[in-house]
Amino acid sequence: MDELEEKKELELFRSLLRNKQYAALRGRAQDMNEADLAAMLEQMEDEDMLKMFRLFPKELAADVFSLLEPDSQQYIITSLSEKEAGTIIDNLYADDAADLLEEMPASVVKKLLANAKPETRNDINHLLQYPDDSAGSVMTVEFVDLKLTMDVAQALDRIRSIGMDSETVNTCYVLNDKRLLLGTVSLRSLVLAKPEQPIEDIMEEDVISVNTNTDQEKVAQQFKKYDLTSMPVVDRENRMVGIITVDDVMDIIEEETTEDLEKMAGIVPSDTEKPYLKTGVFETWKKRVPWLMLLMISATFTGRIITSFETALSAHIVLSSYIPMLMDTGGNAGSQASVEVVRALSLDEVHFSDYWKVVFKEMRVALLCGITLAAANFAKCMLLDGVSTAVAFAVCMTIICAVFFSKCIAATLVLVVSKLGLDPAVVASPMLTTIIDAISLLVYFSISTAVLHIPV
Amino acid sequence: MDELEEKKELELFRSLLRNKQYAALRGRAQDMNEADLAAMLEQMEDEDMLKMFRLFPKELAADVFSLLEPDSQQYIITSLSEKEAGTIIDNLYADDAADLLEEMPASVVKKLLANAKPETRNDINHLLQYPDDSAGSVMTVEFVDLKLTMDVAQALDRIRSIGMDSETVNTCYVLNDKRLLLGTVSLRSLVLAKPEQPIEDIMEEDVISVNTNTDQEKVAQQFKKYDLTSMPVVDRENRMVGIITVDDVMDIIEEETTEDLEKMAGIVPSDTEKPYLKTGVFETWKKRVPWLMLLMISATFTGRIITSFETALSAHIVLSSYIPMLMDTGGNAGSQASVEVVRALSLDEVHFSDYWKVVFKEMRVALLCGITLAAANFAKCMLLDGVSTAVAFAVCMTIICAVFFSKCIAATLVLVVSKLGLDPAVVASPMLTTIIDAISLLVYFSISTAVLHIPV
Repeated sequence: MDELEEKKELELFRSLLRNKQYAALRGRAQDMNEADLAAMLEQMEDEDMLKMFRLFPKELAADVFSLLEPDSQQYIITSLSEKEAGTIIDNLYADDAADLLEEMPASVVKKLLANAKPETRNDINHLLQYPDDSAGSVMTVEFVDLKLTMDVAQALDRIRSIGMDSETVNTCYVLNDKRLLLGTVSLRSLVLAKPEQPIEDIMEEDVISVNTNTDQEKVAQQFKKYDLTSMPVVDRENRMVGIITVDDVMDIIEEETTEDLEKMAGIVPSDTEKPYLKTGVFETWKKRVPWLMLLMISATFTGRIITSFETALSAHIVLSSYIPMLMDTGGNAGSQASVEVVRALSLDEVHFSDYWKVVFKEMRVALLCGITLAAANFAKCMLLDGVSTAVAFAVCMTIICAVFFSKCIAATLVLVVSKLGLDPAVVASPMLTTIIDAISLLVYFSISTAVLHIPV
Repeated sequence: MDELEEKKELELFRSLLRNKQYAALRGRAQDMNEADLAAMLEQMEDEDMLKMFRLFPKELAADVFSLLEPDSQQYIITSLSEKEAGTIIDNLYADDAADLLEEMPASVVKKLLANAKPETRNDINHLLQYPDDSAGSVMTVEFVDLKLTMDVAQALDRIRSIGMDSETVNTCYVLNDKRLLLGTVSLRSLVLAKPEQPIEDIMEEDVISVNTNTDQEKVAQQFKKYDLTSMPVVDRENRMVGIITVDDVMDIIEEETTEDLEKMAGIVPSDTEKPYLKTGVFETWKKRVPWLMLLMISATFTGRIITSFETALSAHIVLSSYIPMLMDTGGNAGSQASVEVVRALSLDEVHFSDYWKVVFKEMRVALLCGITLAAANFAKCMLLDGVSTAVAFAVCMTIICAVFFSKCIAATLVLVVSKLGLDPAVVASPMLTTIIDAISLLVYFSISTAVLHIPV
């Protein structure tokens, strides 16, 4: 649905609700797509949302519930009776349920789990143990397991008896008695095979799996590299415990991209990613002010550099007019290099072992860029600004040096930081600009005092 | 495989190749995953790569080929005989083949198509017509079409007779005689249903589809919103022409993210995205120098502002030491806002109609941030710098105004630019910083000349 359709539908639902035409409401909701329905509920007042939600049949309720924003989920789950809430939890995928419970106060979690079925409770408790951002915390525990001794007909019977949701059934996993993963069988190959064919014949043995502790960013890389739609997760003893599906991976990529962008813009990423307009003013302030403060303080060092060259500046006041240009050019040149290297790292195109290749490339690019910019700037200095050749020379030499240092330092910092196991996105941030500002200014004043024979 | 395993395997392959142990080589290659094999070929000399490639059975050859980098693909396809190349093209998915041919010189394309099967030729020619970055250009034309009049047994027979690759078979599409899309049937529901059940009974009618002209970014948004693994593509007359699968969407997301990051860092994205280390120095220079040049030129305006306040600066030389801090703080505050709004737009969380909500939010956040920073700075000015209260007051007032204007201008520009149908990522770039630098300086000099009673 586009924005306009959504608005119309919302109006219709509101009026049906006001006129208590619940049967019509329920019918209309069942014809709609769950994601559209969830998006619409988000637009409603809390009480209306709850009323609507109670009208849904329980399967639909669970599907829509899993698509709501965390704060709406919390509102609904705490407003429902304990029995109603228990039913919702039972009908959710265990990983969605675990995500929900992680955000709730402990007393509510206890009550909710008490009302869920024992097997749901087990699955959820299991999932809650894994560290944040690990494969274990994003996996789902529902999957189809087959035995090596089955034939195709038995395998299809097993799938029918489990009768699971479509996403998780397209690949089945062959386990031995110790639940070690032996291979995979696609639903397609089961359909194409003869009923009496043994599973062993059509099993794919070359399986890409991850460990429960694998970082979710690594999981996403594997999905992209091998074009997967699902991936088994094994525990430390190599027993299969769950699967990660491609829709979870899309969420991971989205989350990691947002985090990287935020870090690069000097924003502290928050644990609970809320949509922009749902994040409170105070919360946004908390995400933004730490870096602003840090950068403000570090920028005073740049100010100190300027003060200490007061003599040079007051003798040649024209020098100060080039300060913003030199600082910006250095900063921009550096951030270009850092963003490209950070991106190459996260796409797994570059590793620390390529250090010299990367820096050598950046050096050559920097020289090319620096010389181009210096040439253009020299022309401008002489033709438009009418400054002395000595000043023009000092400014242009500074451009070349600033671009050169900026790109080398940026690439080096990014690679070193990632080698240390830290997130390089933090380096490709305003912090880098501050460092480069200081260096550009030092270079500028050193060159110009030398060229213009200014006593320091 | 991790980096170390990859290196060992590469050494082994090289030595087998040197000793002409081709049978062993072929056997080992067939045991490996295609993506790993492609990654390894990329590391080899061109001639070795070609030799290896010729050893592969033709199915494997096509699979590995589709995973190679564009420049390796071109080398291989032009080095093979016309007949060999034709076989590769026939065994590729039509969309991969079309992507390949788009990069080749016209004469080569003609020769390649002449050697491919007529149906391959048709599919490819069809795909080549769609504009870049449209749903039509990324879709694949291979899918399973069913008729409404079939029963489950007939549908399964049809799937068996087509015998297609797993990815494209998990969802089947029910079309009428005019090839209009009536609904979808998942392979899972076919397996769960009774053989004699009519397709109509188990068909899902609520289908999310896109048009061939839909932008690929929009396609990716729909996939995320509705948690899809494949999506039908229809033409202007609503006839179904292809499907987009989730692995294509992952590539789209990767491509769009890289483009956004590059734009934000003042890099001109190139049409053919090559990995960082494979992009030549000259090519990288071409991507980076335009923005550096433009920003260098625009930064001279900031320089002009400083020059025109020479009097103020020479009377109170201490004022110039705060220039870097004020410029940086404004720039950082603005880029925080722009990055968050750009991200919210691309995640479909915010629209132009939310303009006032966004700006009102940014205003309040800006005031909070500005006041916090000003307070900290005032303390520093008085305690550490020992400047006069008037100077400290001027600096702090500038911080508040600069942060306020930066965030409002950033949010406004991003929303307006996206409303105009342009890419807002370009705004969230160093260009914004340059605009904000100028504004911060103007505010600074206006406030300080007023507070310090300096004649301008």
